[in-house]
This record gives sequence, C-alpha cells and structure tokens, in this order.
Amino acid sequence: MSRSSDRAAGAVEDAVAAFGRGRPVLVHDAADREGETDLIYPADTVEPADVARMRNDAGGLVCVALPDDVAAAYELPFVRGELDHPAADGHDVDYDERSSFSITVNHRDTFTGITDEDRALTITALAGAAADVRDAAPGATPDADDFAASFRSPGHVHLLRAAPGGLADRRGHTELGLALADATDRPPAVVVCEMLDDESGEALSPGAARAYADREGLAYVEGAALVDRFV
Amino acid sequence: MSRSSDRAAGAVEDAVAAFGRGRPVLVHDAADREGETDLIYPADTVEPADVARMRNDAGGLVCVALPDDVAAAYELPFVRGELDHPAADGHDVDYDERSSFSITVNHRDTFTGITDEDRALTITALAGAAADVRDAAPGATPDADDFAASFRSPGHVHLLRAAPGGLADRRGHTELGLALADATDRPPAVVVCEMLDDESGEALSPGAARAYADREGLAYVEGAALVDRFV
Repeated sequence: MSRSSDRAAGAVEDAVAAFGRGRPVLVHDAADREGETDLIYPADTVEPADVARMRNDAGGLVCVALPDDVAAAYELPFVRGELDHPAADGHDVDYDERSSFSITVNHRDTFTGITDEDRALTITALAGAAADVRDAAPGATPDADDFAASFRSPGHVHLLRAAPGGLADRRGHTELGLALADATDRPPAVVVCEMLDDESGEALSPGAARAYADREGLAYVEGAALVDRFV
Repeated sequence: MSRSSDRAAGAVEDAVAAFGRGRPVLVHDAADREGETDLIYPADTVEPADVARMRNDAGGLVCVALPDDVAAAYELPFVRGELDHPAADGHDVDYDERSSFSITVNHRDTFTGITDEDRALTITALAGAAADVRDAAPGATPDADDFAASFRSPGHVHLLRAAPGGLADRRGHTELGLALADATDRPPAVVVCEMLDDESGEALSPGAARAYADREGLAYVEGAALVDRFV
C-alpha cells in the first residue's frame, strides 16, 4: 500500500470512529463532481447547538439523508418526479444525473420549524423514524401514515433520498454520509450541510475545510477514500 | 396622534425609504403570530455578500416571496396543495391558517445552486422575472415555459407565494415584505430570512433584533405598523 493510500485509509478509520462516537465529520465529494465539502452529522445526536454550528460555520441547506428503503417505506418521493411544472423537466443538476431532494418536513411538535430547537427536534425524530424501519419485525414495517403522525410537510428540514444502490449507484454526500452511518451502529439517517466560503462566494475549498476540521478537532475525509473502503 | 403611533409611523417611513434605496430592513411580524424577525431585501439588489449576511447573521431559510399574480402567471403552486402524502394533510402551521411555501428553484446558469454567487444569481433573476410580469403589455404576460427557460426545480432558493389579497388577507413576512416593495419602485420580489438566536436556540428576540439593526445601521419595523400604514 502506498503512503498516500495508507493516509487515506487512516482518514476513513478516523472518520468512522468519530461518527460512531456521534461526532460530525467533514466529507469532500470530488473535484470533478460538486467539489463541495459537507459537514455531516449522525442525525440521532443533533442538538440545537449543532444546528447553530451548521448555520454559522457551514451555511448551506440543513438536510437529512435517508436510505432508499427507509424513504420507500414512508413513501417519501423524489420531488423531481412529483412536480407538474416545466421547470422540473429535464436534468436538474449538472454534476450528476439527478438530485436527491425529497420533500421538506417539520416535526408536528415544532412551532415555526426553523429555530435551532425546532430543527434539532425534527432531525432527531427523523433518526428515530429511520431506526424504526431498520428495526421493524417482518411484516410490521411502519408506513406513510406512521410518518405523517409525527411529521408535516412542507417544513424547514429538507429530506434527501439516497440512490437505491447507495454508493455503488451515486456518489453524492447523501450516499457518502449514509455509508458512514452504515459502518457504525448509528441509525440510517444523517444530516448534511454544505460548507460555504464568505470571501469567495463559492464552496469552501478543500484546504480551508481541512483547516477548519483541524481547528475544531473534527475528522476530514475525501469521498474517494470512502468509496475505496465501502464499494 | 400619540407619541408611540408617531414613532411607529416614523419607523415605517424609514423602512420604506431604506428599502427604496435597496437596503435590507428588519421586520418583526407580531408577538401573537410567529414572533419572528426576518431580514428582508429587495430581491433585485442582492449580491453574494448579502447571501453571506443572511447565512451568518440571520440563519433561517433564504426565501424569495412573490405576489399571487406573479406566481399565478408562472404557475408556481403552493406545495401544501400539491403533495400527495398524508404528511401534507391538514393545517401545516400553528401560527396561521396556511404556509406560503411554493417550489424550490435554481437559476439554470448556477452549478450546485447553494453558493452565495449561485443564490444571488437565482434571486436577482427572480426579481427580473417578477418585473417582467408587472411590466408586461396586455396579452403578453410571460408564462410557466418562460419561467422554466430560466429556472429549474428542485433547487436551493425557496419560493413563497403571497396570499391573493396581500396584507389584507394574511400578515406573514411574505406579505409584509411585498408591501414594502409595493410602496417603492422595486420589483415585486423580496428575499426573507428568519433571524435566529445562537444562545437560546429560539427566534431572535425583538430587542436583540432591534439592537442588531442599530449596530448595522438598518431600519427595524413592527409588522403592526406596516399593517396600519398599508391596509
């Protein structure tokens, strides 16, 4: 194994270990894809201060990614297939064949849904709902009505639905984050939020994202290293 | 006129004047509604640094509010009526009869759609699209296909559709912001973003929002004062 692949494998082990302990991890997808680093949390651990960190230090949309089987059980669609408007026709992104956006939701016990308290409640409850599907006894998988008992739409947290084959199928932050959850005991639900640069107006560069991770004591990993390990 | 209504009227004049010059304004809706202060911009003036200010200083969703006639021309629906899922059944918010959420969009010339550069492009182009409806010659109103030529959905900017009667009908930030645009020469499109509090995890208090406005040299106005003036 070369020194650089050793280093990459070490970064993956560090990221999996941190994620398993409930810590956020920074994941850069690929220079030839979005070229973006997302701050990724296990959804079950998110507290209001974590939502504040995403707002203040990352700046993108606060999204919860769910595996295809969880989204299917709860009948959470890809919105690209749902909207009857010419703006929804054709490829909707340049960096991949398709976007992951599903519907937006609030937990029913939130008020506006946008505050750190409210979004943390919605996010942790989504982790619980995802675990309910994973842990269901045969023939007792929860369904769309169970989902609707806890969540309403539209809301202030974006749901993302992973490709059916996960990382083998699509290599977005949705699938990269869920691979981390899959490698640990965490429920199959992860929060992803894009890291943006105040100065350039663009995505935060990999170098700046890595420097942030070092400063904050967080793990940083390349998407390619996760793909090497998990696919 | 009492001294307090004098003060309120003065705050409205200051807010309208600032908005007319292209400056953002802080608007608190009402203690018995969301109890929320939004940072509101004329959409046509928004630059990447303004999106960064919304991310860093406000923290809510970056939304563009459009009047009902503009949304109708472009066939931009309320998503609460569009989604065939039990999570979309029933009242979707506690503070009003209904939410304003329409679809999410990116300008077609954006890449990921989330960066400050990309969102500023989407936002200013939406202002242009709104002005195109307002300024159209009779019989030449642009339509959904014209919208789709410039924008795709899903995306990273939330559209909000105002109530048909504007402020007379609903008193959310959507309608309050558009009343400011209506009182000036600005196109009928405004960006609204909720101001959140890092410490409490709740909405920023009116006192803290007013202190921020003072510090930044921005106008702050109560929704009730806008209603008094414009309804």
